[in-house]
Amino acid sequence: MNQEFNFVENGGVTSPAGFLACGVCAGFKRSGSNDMAMIVSERDCSFAGTFTSNLFPAAPVRYCREICASSPNVRAVTINSGVANACTGLEGYQNTLRTAALAAEALNIEPRQVLVASTGRIGVQIPMDKIEKGIREGVKLLSHDGGSAAAHAILTTDTRPKELAVSFSVNGKKVTVGGCCKGAGMISPRMVVAPHATMICVITTDAEADNAYLAQVIEKAVNASFNKITVDNDMSTNDTVLLLANGSSGVRIAAGSEGSGQFENAVRMVAEHLARSIVYDGEGVSKFVSVEVSGAANDRDAELAARAIANSPLCKTAWFGCDPNWGRILAAAGYSGASFRPENVSVYFDEMPVVRGGLDAGTPESELAELMKHREFSIKVELGEGSACCTIWTGDFTYEYVKINADYHT
Amino acid sequence: MNQEFNFVENGGVTSPAGFLACGVCAGFKRSGSNDMAMIVSERDCSFAGTFTSNLFPAAPVRYCREICASSPNVRAVTINSGVANACTGLEGYQNTLRTAALAAEALNIEPRQVLVASTGRIGVQIPMDKIEKGIREGVKLLSHDGGSAAAHAILTTDTRPKELAVSFSVNGKKVTVGGCCKGAGMISPRMVVAPHATMICVITTDAEADNAYLAQVIEKAVNASFNKITVDNDMSTNDTVLLLANGSSGVRIAAGSEGSGQFENAVRMVAEHLARSIVYDGEGVSKFVSVEVSGAANDRDAELAARAIANSPLCKTAWFGCDPNWGRILAAAGYSGASFRPENVSVYFDEMPVVRGGLDAGTPESELAELMKHREFSIKVELGEGSACCTIWTGDFTYEYVKINADYHT
Repeated sequence: MNQEFNFVENGGVTSPAGFLACGVCAGFKRSGSNDMAMIVSERDCSFAGTFTSNLFPAAPVRYCREICASSPNVRAVTINSGVANACTGLEGYQNTLRTAALAAEALNIEPRQVLVASTGRIGVQIPMDKIEKGIREGVKLLSHDGGSAAAHAILTTDTRPKELAVSFSVNGKKVTVGGCCKGAGMISPRMVVAPHATMICVITTDAEADNAYLAQVIEKAVNASFNKITVDNDMSTNDTVLLLANGSSGVRIAAGSEGSGQFENAVRMVAEHLARSIVYDGEGVSKFVSVEVSGAANDRDAELAARAIANSPLCKTAWFGCDPNWGRILAAAGYSGASFRPENVSVYFDEMPVVRGGLDAGTPESELAELMKHREFSIKVELGEGSACCTIWTGDFTYEYVKINADYHT
Repeated sequence: MNQEFNFVENGGVTSPAGFLACGVCAGFKRSGSNDMAMIVSERDCSFAGTFTSNLFPAAPVRYCREICASSPNVRAVTINSGVANACTGLEGYQNTLRTAALAAEALNIEPRQVLVASTGRIGVQIPMDKIEKGIREGVKLLSHDGGSAAAHAILTTDTRPKELAVSFSVNGKKVTVGGCCKGAGMISPRMVVAPHATMICVITTDAEADNAYLAQVIEKAVNASFNKITVDNDMSTNDTVLLLANGSSGVRIAAGSEGSGQFENAVRMVAEHLARSIVYDGEGVSKFVSVEVSGAANDRDAELAARAIANSPLCKTAWFGCDPNWGRILAAAGYSGASFRPENVSVYFDEMPVVRGGLDAGTPESELAELMKHREFSIKVELGEGSACCTIWTGDFTYEYVKINADYHT
């Protein structure tokens, strides 16, 4: 697939034409780091979003759903880190409306053209004086190469920014898709039916497309990326993925049109890269583990087994300790709710046989332990029932995870 | 309820009349500690058992299910720690049969009168020479006060034995119920419909009762005890609870008979004490947390919400850090699958209000943090939808948990 695309060097949300961004210090973080980002398009954008399915959606999530349902186009996204504005009631919702109004005023656009996302501590009201300061100073810093500054400003327990941009040609015209995201903990999409995501991600493109098509494209991309990762099995109140298309490339893309395959692949590739980056940078994660279940009777069983293994504390701590202890993997598959016959199950670590017919395959433990020292490996579980499969990307469970989360106050 | 009962000092499985037990070093544990126990009745016992619902039941679990279905009575239980005899195929099953046959021969009883339980590492064959040694030496050590030795011998990552016995009178005759159990990790019952448990537990009584009644009594007791605990959300392949009644007291108990209420309460009390002991001694657990969800629309929702909170890594690490971070509790309830309106939710830590109407109740964080320093506290979540409730007992997530499980080889 990759030969279709050019990777943009140091690419991100401002790689597509006509987008500006900035990172600014509004004052939410005690560290004094930048903690607010704005991403702005020079032209009206068609757009689509997917959001958490948590019963406690944060105020900005409820607001963005409204905008998705009622606004024909948008021009800007503001994102603050440090305060989630979740479980904040009517006051929190009014603060989100006020944030949109302030940004609209500063940018000379309509309030309904501003999307808002927040991340950080749940249950505290957002200090609006800081939002005001962030927007006031942010608009002065907006630039065509501000994508990286925005990607930095939205981080919380992340240790590094997550960005990518790719471009491709349609009839000689260049189209670019770029994105950035944040997320390291409280990462676990859990329902595949309702479109939703697990963190905050903005994907921009200079393609021209209508909202309905963008909604299809982002749902498909999210299901193949953010909905396949778990760090800690904890679904957030604030998960948001936004896709903005401003048409600056002059290339119109629609379902089945020329370039639509490339466009959909580009969005998916950016989403997948960013989703994997979240696991790589997951809280305390020292190993990236791809849990690949195949041979399931149906999609639901494949996902149940893959998620049970990917979220098992006993599996995750064993991976941290380079302990091949495959019994924990079978036990997790065995309680997952998936239906299969134990005697048909095989397990591989990368290409190394571990379990065959439900029993030890005989590979020496020392060889398996050696393989597990790698930064990345796969656990492949073949259930022997059918042809359904599911891959979940996850990490290990470390001392560092406990340290980060036993005392998290932003 | 407690005034009905006398607690037997240092009581355990040999407190009921006519039971003997021992602990012996068979050689499974590298430490050289005792690692095999036998519990034997002088008379035939009626009996019942509940077992894991994991799709990979260990060989002794499959064997015990057979015995429960086909044998009218039993006389003995052998338990080894260090090797789980799970995922060991036909050879593992034959080894369990051979264990029963060896014990039967040494005790001069029928093989079908011997129940077998194993705990320890999954996926390795049990060394039968050690089983032979354990049984050969064990039968010589059987005694009427061997309950404590048996309770010690079955431990794995547990730090202390778990035992209790209570007695009560029926028409002037004394009836005693005693029990012991092991379990610290891989602890999470997950299905409330199928009777099953989460660890190894033997409950003995000198009451006389038939198998069908004992099956009712143990199912009810397990649902109210072992099925309410979770340490790590990992359901084991070897979970086993056995109830043996040898009739030595001369008191016959049946459904609705005189003394049946006391008997059922006694069994439940012993099961509940042992289940709570497992959480107190859970791997790395520094705090015992009772998660109490009330006001749910139905039992399923109450349990979904309670389990999501009890198993959330973000909640458990926050408890370890004495961080009141109640947003994580609401977020877990919000993704649990339970149905409720966020604005109706209240949360208390013990009696201290934390959330009211889905919003911060205003109790200073410092007061909540102080409360969380206790060895035991409760998280009470009132959903405001109906009258269903569910309590799950769990622990926190600590550095020690990671340490224990990142390198577990017995």
